[in-house]
Amino acid sequence: MKPIARIHTPFPTKFGIPRQSGLIPSLPAEIVFEKEFRNPDAVRGLDDFSHIWLLWEFSEAKRSTWSATVRPPRLGGNQRMGVFATRSPFRPNPIGLSCVRLQKIDFSGERGPVLHVLGADLMDQTPIYDIKPYLPAFDSQPQASGGFTEALAEKPLHIECSPALLEKIPQEKRELLWSVLSQDPRPSYQHDKTRIYGLEFDNMEIRFSIDGLRLIIHEIRHRGQAHE
Amino acid sequence: MKPIARIHTPFPTKFGIPRQSGLIPSLPAEIVFEKEFRNPDAVRGLDDFSHIWLLWEFSEAKRSTWSATVRPPRLGGNQRMGVFATRSPFRPNPIGLSCVRLQKIDFSGERGPVLHVLGADLMDQTPIYDIKPYLPAFDSQPQASGGFTEALAEKPLHIECSPALLEKIPQEKRELLWSVLSQDPRPSYQHDKTRIYGLEFDNMEIRFSIDGLRLIIHEIRHRGQAHE
Repeated sequence: MKPIARIHTPFPTKFGIPRQSGLIPSLPAEIVFEKEFRNPDAVRGLDDFSHIWLLWEFSEAKRSTWSATVRPPRLGGNQRMGVFATRSPFRPNPIGLSCVRLQKIDFSGERGPVLHVLGADLMDQTPIYDIKPYLPAFDSQPQASGGFTEALAEKPLHIECSPALLEKIPQEKRELLWSVLSQDPRPSYQHDKTRIYGLEFDNMEIRFSIDGLRLIIHEIRHRGQAHE
Repeated sequence: MKPIARIHTPFPTKFGIPRQSGLIPSLPAEIVFEKEFRNPDAVRGLDDFSHIWLLWEFSEAKRSTWSATVRPPRLGGNQRMGVFATRSPFRPNPIGLSCVRLQKIDFSGERGPVLHVLGADLMDQTPIYDIKPYLPAFDSQPQASGGFTEALAEKPLHIECSPALLEKIPQEKRELLWSVLSQDPRPSYQHDKTRIYGLEFDNMEIRFSIDGLRLIIHEIRHRGQAHE
C-alpha cells in the first residue's frame, strides 16, 4: 500500500473537518497525484463520472492496538458501538472511504492532472490510496437503512460575528466558513460555554465559543500573524 | 494492513464471479472474522444496517507494476480506460470495494460472529480489510452519472440444459446457478462457440459452451468426482 496522491483541503488540523463527505457539498479540495502516478492516461474517462470514491489513510488516527468498540461523536460520545458498525477512524486498518463530487480535472501545468472535488471530509495532505468511479447502479442504495445514525438530526448553530471581525474574512470564504462552523466542530461531549475553540481554516484561525445553539466569533487571526 | 476476516463464497476460482456487487442479489456469502478480530462487541449495532461496505484485497490480481490504463471487460476488452476510471482489480493498491446486503449476524458457535451477506462479487477466501456500515445519507447518490458504464446493458444468456444434467444440480442451487451463468462469465473478447468453459461453483464444475445468446450445458461434475 502506497499513497497515489495527496488531497489539499482548507483544514490543516483535524478540528472542524465535516464528519462525513458531502455534509458541506460546496467544500472544495484538490487531489494531486504523486509523481509516479501523475499520468493523464490514468484518469482517462473519469471526467464522465459525477462522483468518485476516495480510499484514504486515517493518517492522524493510527494506533498500535485496536479496540472492539468506539464512542461515535454523533451519539454524544458516551455510548459504545462496535467499531465495524461505525465509520470511526480508530479501526484495525486505518482506511477511510469518502464519496465526493468530481467538479473537473485540470490537465494543465506541472501538477496535472489535478482532480477538483467538492464535499471531501479530509484533512489537508491526507494520503490517498485509491480513486474509483462511483457507479450509481451498484453503489447507490437509497432504500438502505442507516442504523443508529438515522434518528440523529443535528441542529445547525447560529453564527454571531461583529461587522469588524467579518471584515477580516475574505468575502468569498464567508459562506463556506459559516457552513463549517454551523455544524458544530466541537467534540460532542464538550459543553463548556466559556471555552474558547480555535478552528484553523485556510490561512485563518477563527476563535469562538458556543453557548447553546449560538456560536460567537471572538477573533480572526491570519496565519503567520501575531495575536492582536 | 492485515486481514480482519475472510469471505466464504461459492466461487473457488475467479471465473464466473459477478462483475459487480449486487448483480446477483441473492448470492449468499459468509464473512468469518480472523481469530484476533472475532469479537461480538466489534459488530455491536451493525445488525441495524441493511447494507455494508467491504474493503478487500484483490488477492488474485497482484502485480508488481501498475499500468495507467486497463481494458474493461464491459467495453469488450478492446478499449482502454484510465485505471482510476474503472473498478479493475489491476490498480496501484489492490483494494476492492463492494456494497453487500447484510442478511443476519450469527453470534453462535466458535466462528461467531459470522456475517451472512448477499450479493458479494468476491472469490472464496478473499481477505477482508475492513467492514463499514453503509450510510445512505452520504453513500447513496442515485443522481450520479455513471460515465462509460451507463450505456452498457448486458443481455442475459438463455440456459439450455438436458433433464438428465439438470438432475445433477441440487434443486436449491439451480436458480442461483442460472443467474451466474446467464450473465455470461466469459472474458468478453472470447467468442468461439466451440470452446468449452468450466465454471466451478460450490462443489460442482459446470462445463458449457456459448453460441450467441444460448449457453449450452454439456456436463456437470461434482468435486472430487472423476470425468464421466
